Amino acid sequence: MAQKPNIPKGTRDFGPIEMARRNYIFQTIRSVFRLYGYEQIETPSMELMSTLMGKYGEEGDKLLFRIQNSGDKANEAPEKGLRYDLTVPFARYVVQHRDELQFPFRRYQIQPVWRADRPQKGRYREFYQCDVDAIGTDSLTNELELIQIVEEVYRRLGVRVSLHLNNRKVLAGIAEVIGQADKLVDITVAIDKLDKIGAEGVNKELQERGLSESAIDKLQPILNMAGDNDQKLNTIAEVLSASEIGCKGVEELREVFRLCHVSGVKLDIDLDLTLARGLNYYTGAIFEVKALDVQIGSITGGGRYDNLTGIFGLPNVSGVGISFGADRIYDVLSELSLYPDDMLDKTQVLMVTFGYDELDYALSVAKELRSEGINTEVYPEPAKMKKQMGYADQKQIPFVAIIGGDEMAQHKVMLKNMLTGNQQLVTIEELKSSIQK
Amino acid sequence: MAQKPNIPKGTRDFGPIEMARRNYIFQTIRSVFRLYGYEQIETPSMELMSTLMGKYGEEGDKLLFRIQNSGDKANEAPEKGLRYDLTVPFARYVVQHRDELQFPFRRYQIQPVWRADRPQKGRYREFYQCDVDAIGTDSLTNELELIQIVEEVYRRLGVRVSLHLNNRKVLAGIAEVIGQADKLVDITVAIDKLDKIGAEGVNKELQERGLSESAIDKLQPILNMAGDNDQKLNTIAEVLSASEIGCKGVEELREVFRLCHVSGVKLDIDLDLTLARGLNYYTGAIFEVKALDVQIGSITGGGRYDNLTGIFGLPNVSGVGISFGADRIYDVLSELSLYPDDMLDKTQVLMVTFGYDELDYALSVAKELRSEGINTEVYPEPAKMKKQMGYADQKQIPFVAIIGGDEMAQHKVMLKNMLTGNQQLVTIEELKSSIQK
Repeated sequence: MAQKPNIPKGTRDFGPIEMARRNYIFQTIRSVFRLYGYEQIETPSMELMSTLMGKYGEEGDKLLFRIQNSGDKANEAPEKGLRYDLTVPFARYVVQHRDELQFPFRRYQIQPVWRADRPQKGRYREFYQCDVDAIGTDSLTNELELIQIVEEVYRRLGVRVSLHLNNRKVLAGIAEVIGQADKLVDITVAIDKLDKIGAEGVNKELQERGLSESAIDKLQPILNMAGDNDQKLNTIAEVLSASEIGCKGVEELREVFRLCHVSGVKLDIDLDLTLARGLNYYTGAIFEVKALDVQIGSITGGGRYDNLTGIFGLPNVSGVGISFGADRIYDVLSELSLYPDDMLDKTQVLMVTFGYDELDYALSVAKELRSEGINTEVYPEPAKMKKQMGYADQKQIPFVAIIGGDEMAQHKVMLKNMLTGNQQLVTIEELKSSIQK
Repeated sequence: MAQKPNIPKGTRDFGPIEMARRNYIFQTIRSVFRLYGYEQIETPSMELMSTLMGKYGEEGDKLLFRIQNSGDKANEAPEKGLRYDLTVPFARYVVQHRDELQFPFRRYQIQPVWRADRPQKGRYREFYQCDVDAIGTDSLTNELELIQIVEEVYRRLGVRVSLHLNNRKVLAGIAEVIGQADKLVDITVAIDKLDKIGAEGVNKELQERGLSESAIDKLQPILNMAGDNDQKLNTIAEVLSASEIGCKGVEELREVFRLCHVSGVKLDIDLDLTLARGLNYYTGAIFEVKALDVQIGSITGGGRYDNLTGIFGLPNVSGVGISFGADRIYDVLSELSLYPDDMLDKTQVLMVTFGYDELDYALSVAKELRSEGINTEVYPEPAKMKKQMGYADQKQIPFVAIIGGDEMAQHKVMLKNMLTGNQQLVTIEELKSSIQK
């Protein structure tokens, strides 16, 4: 036969087992979002190019998938593109619907996004994001709630995680006190490598990036910081005492830690000044979550933004949000074998028949079982026994109800437990209760 | 401020209430699919153009949305397009994954599709389809099961429907016996108008479409057919007695009716020879479902295809499937006010506070409530009472727990029932049980 058909690079088909696992992840996340009062929205897959362009930096613009109308001339610039993340469409949504919304607006959104990235292991051109944001409030109780949501989602999924916390104002304060407010990006990029190249390596890189000797000197207490979160905060507070924005950042961090304490948060939280997450729109808290038992990078992340909707003409609306990376969470749960057994909502019983009269009888039994909520399949024809049983086996259906002339005459079925191999002649009532057990 | 941002023509944002309603529809449909053993798959939003082109006729090709890579030259033909339906991607999936699949393969798929149609009322460029298909089996028990699924889905949704049933082989038989096998399309198009223009009008149209006088004569028993399904089938059987394919069609219809009878199907089923559904790939049963209490056209439809996977090089795999139109079902439920009240999984209680100490206390109470599974929000700051209460009102949150200094000192809250207006000072335990009632 002809060559097998294929799908575009960087995209995936999801079969029944993958779908069951993905649904389990989405349901778990969704149920925690609901527990905190977040409501679901969906936005179109396509946005106007004017909504998307310039929001993700020059690199991001290049990674947008553009959509042609069939009517478009080949050399016309497409007016639409596929959404690149859920944050910009959310900002567009808030501005467009602001008169219908009640603020603070707590929304979640679980939808695919598309990026024309070079596909590689673990990086896809179509993947799902699960975003949760509270907008129209600058209260730090929202930061607390997002931390609680992270704690509860991973508790339910059974994944041990640590949450890395930083504050963009602290980073700005550092750049300010060392007299290099213009070099904020260089400083965070260098600090980001502390784990890998050590304090000396960072100092060298800072020098190369044009920081003055004295600026680098002033940075040393930060680079050599030790102790628990409180001790670190004290060190930072001291270094930043002359910076108004820096002090504000320290104060925000302290308050978030205090709220976590008040609310009994048990999650492992690390104050981590190396965390910057590259995104320019963060203005306060920055979050990142890592799995402790799998090497996979960040599985959840986000932060506070004071002016996300400003890009669409609605300034001064502060919000904070995080995004759960469904694909990486999927990989973590797979690697740690954390999927529950009963997640599949599988077929519970297959009706297997020896002839067409028995098939009629099987259909009426199936109807009764389904009316009790039992997931039931009828093998569609009286094929060879081996074939029908093989189907049950392959699909891992736990019970088979075998029907021959004798069973039918007695209004019974031969119930086979596919796990133990036991067979038993049972009435329809017994069949129901055996399966429901 | 600047002009409000917007979304592309023919697309929609879905807010919280719309999402809750849509989820209710999808969940209902999904749970019935599972009851019959169908398993979920998802395919990528993008397919290769080679997969899509030529599958939907010339008109369909024009309605495909093409996707440009940013690297593509403007005059290069895009290699990818957005999926146009779920049937062709399913056929592609079956052929591509045939070695991993167990046949008969029962799958369902709930995903958006895109068509570059001219947008108008009720017609969108992005909309969801809910498809269910059994492939790799020509047993008519599959037709029965799809009819049962239709019956059960609409029973659960509370919508009265009728199912129109036809068979492509009967249509082919009619064309054959009147000696115009080449005019099958003309005949079905004309018959399709019987309701609107009557038998005389149809005859006139058939004449215009070039059917001979004698062919039209032979068609009259069909056009003037009356009685119940059995009587109609007898008429058709007589007219088609000389056509092998026609007899086969009649036999299939009789068997489907018989299976429905055996299985206690109560659904109103109309044998409807005017039903053709335009799609060329149907080879046996053709289904269409209409709501009885809303004028909206078909809300579910489908049929049997003997060679869907043939287009991808895997011939002779018979299947049958139907598609539920989520958008029209949404409109039907809205018009008939059939959404259940408890569908929203709403926030059950809002914590309202008079000061920051109370806010701390509210956070700890909220934690307790959530650990009992109660959806709880804390207003993020001790704003004016009117503002906080207004928030609860707007979001239709049924309970508010008001916390001032006195309540906090007594480890209690003032519980207000927003429906009755009653207020009561209660302990945290009483708060839990009041909400859970």
